[in-house]
Amino acid sequence: MIENISHDSVCEIRLARPPVNALDTDLLAAISREIGAAAADGASAIFLSGRPGMFSAGLDVPHLLTQTREQMLVFWREFFGAQQAIAASPVPIAAAITGHSPAGGAVLALHADYRVMAQATAAPAKYRIGLNEVQVGLFPGPIIYGALRRLVGPRHADRVMGGGLMLTAAEALEAGLVDRVVPEEQVVPAALEWARHLASLPPHALAQTRRMARADLVALTAGLGRQDYEAMNAAWFSDETQFTLRQLVERLKKN
Amino acid sequence: MIENISHDSVCEIRLARPPVNALDTDLLAAISREIGAAAADGASAIFLSGRPGMFSAGLDVPHLLTQTREQMLVFWREFFGAQQAIAASPVPIAAAITGHSPAGGAVLALHADYRVMAQATAAPAKYRIGLNEVQVGLFPGPIIYGALRRLVGPRHADRVMGGGLMLTAAEALEAGLVDRVVPEEQVVPAALEWARHLASLPPHALAQTRRMARADLVALTAGLGRQDYEAMNAAWFSDETQFTLRQLVERLKKN
Amino acid sequence: MIENISHDSVCEIRLARPPVNALDTDLLAAISREIGAAAADGASAIFLSGRPGMFSAGLDVPHLLTQTREQMLVFWREFFGAQQAIAASPVPIAAAITGHSPAGGAVLALHADYRVMAQATAAPAKYRIGLNEVQVGLFPGPIIYGALRRLVGPRHADRVMGGGLMLTAAEALEAGLVDRVVPEEQVVPAALEWARHLASLPPHALAQTRRMARADLVALTAGLGRQDYEAMNAAWFSDETQFTLRQLVERLKKN
Repeated sequence: MIENISHDSVCEIRLARPPVNALDTDLLAAISREIGAAAADGASAIFLSGRPGMFSAGLDVPHLLTQTREQMLVFWREFFGAQQAIAASPVPIAAAITGHSPAGGAVLALHADYRVMAQATAAPAKYRIGLNEVQVGLFPGPIIYGALRRLVGPRHADRVMGGGLMLTAAEALEAGLVDRVVPEEQVVPAALEWARHLASLPPHALAQTRRMARADLVALTAGLGRQDYEAMNAAWFSDETQFTLRQLVERLKKN
Repeated sequence: MIENISHDSVCEIRLARPPVNALDTDLLAAISREIGAAAADGASAIFLSGRPGMFSAGLDVPHLLTQTREQMLVFWREFFGAQQAIAASPVPIAAAITGHSPAGGAVLALHADYRVMAQATAAPAKYRIGLNEVQVGLFPGPIIYGALRRLVGPRHADRVMGGGLMLTAAEALEAGLVDRVVPEEQVVPAALEWARHLASLPPHALAQTRRMARADLVALTAGLGRQDYEAMNAAWFSDETQFTLRQLVERLKKN
Repeated sequence: MIENISHDSVCEIRLARPPVNALDTDLLAAISREIGAAAADGASAIFLSGRPGMFSAGLDVPHLLTQTREQMLVFWREFFGAQQAIAASPVPIAAAITGHSPAGGAVLALHADYRVMAQATAAPAKYRIGLNEVQVGLFPGPIIYGALRRLVGPRHADRVMGGGLMLTAAEALEAGLVDRVVPEEQVVPAALEWARHLASLPPHALAQTRRMARADLVALTAGLGRQDYEAMNAAWFSDETQFTLRQLVERLKKN
């Protein structure tokens, strides 16, 4: 489900849940666990990556539609827990966005220190990233909106999240949703280059600066509890959301 | 004073107060009324437009200089009321900025979800948008500054509002003061295209997301009262402002 | 240490402490004093400039490493005092960034209304500006981070300050760390042009607008006291910082 790759002291956490790195409770828990383990093992920096062409397809909707309310409470806890693990990572953490990254895939990247995204090398293929929750009838809630708005400012946040937009890598760079765009075969090397630079800095000054700078990001997912997950459930189990998500699954089956 | 044009379920509210869509108490009240009526009539989205080459010339200064303090209190109420009507619109709302849009014209656009601006097709004409209140001696106050800063961030807000700058469409796009620039004959179609996309989204997820995202914008003009309008009057009736505005009117008469 | 140059009612405050305008207690106190004097003498606008190719090399590290804790408390008071003098200037104030501007040099510019930066005319020389405190083991603290984040937003602030990055003029323009880039011989004329435009505006409307817009910037350095300077000392006298700064000084001596 996850491959752990060492580049000297830099730890790559590669999402490897076939076929499209869809996020379920177990994968999210594994992401949190691996980040914790890497930091505890003395990694100097971390980056998440995916498979070529697909960072993560976002939530595993076909599976999640089979879950009970209680099971979904656990899912939300792990979903926001993984965001917290990324945001609060004690060492610098990047997202090597190796391909498409809709909704939940983009959400994970929002919480990293740095995002490098792959440009498809075989035109006309275009990888896209975005917050398209509204397109599929899902209210993204204040935490994801807060992390997006912190990164790109209110104008782009409202435009992308309100419109449920998926952006090309170039558009995402323009909007500040990613920090760098490179040809797809260079996305892991670019994340590694960033990680190595950060790892070369005086560690105390860096840690103190990151703690100060990211305090408001970390606060978004700190201290969440059952009522926050219940609020997500209220949206998830609403008629409109269930109807739209089931339509989406029908379309996916036909393709 | 206003033309109401239906594009299926999308409502275009076209400012039509000759000769330059200058804003007075009646036009502002009409804008608020039309937005309320469109939403009540089940419009799926709304956009404001102006006449070719002129979205709105801003406040009707020659007329407003004839108004008493009590009349100006009513004017400010309707000016901020129109901003509130736009900001709090229950359905998505765009500004189709069909041409020049100084001061009050730009202010209305700040509160929309989306702004598409016309590029003049016959060079060297250039349409401009900006917050040039300071140029004409007028203190814009915290509400307009707040809406501008929310949209473009402190750096551009301070630069544009402090310098009283009017930007070309291209400069406005660069600064984030507008979201898209198109040749002038395409500005209404572009606003309609945006409106139709928004209208196609699952309505509850969209409404909940817009309510969350725009809460801080709506709050700027919510709960205003007499003391806020008195503060605007204090600036309006100051010696410097009256002197500068009267000079402006003299120049306008000569041209 | 400082040259005072009048351009009609615009006052240029030129840093002139050989060889590289390194910031020590006296130069910082002089900057504050000159800004106060210019405003008191009725200057309509002010700009800071440096020597060709070097705006300021930042803190005078070799000298400051010889200072006691008590002397460093005085230094921090003057360092933040100069930032306060710039931020709270009653008349518009620009930074004419005539060349390199690392760390403390960049910090002064953050607090101005406007920043114009020199592009080196003899390629391949490139002037750079940045917040590279972390590179030299120094925790920049919440005030400098706050001023940077206000100017460029959280994404660029975290990237530049966390990575201790020095940007070329073009990169700084892209990030919003400066507002305009011109060939080096035009940097003073460009700052003067900006100052003259601001000086031409109705003074009360301008002053009121600047006071409103910059209130949060001014607040960052207002009301600081001994405990804030002690916090800077705690970082300065830490083992990592002392070690890294002494290494830096050794390298400087060898070159």
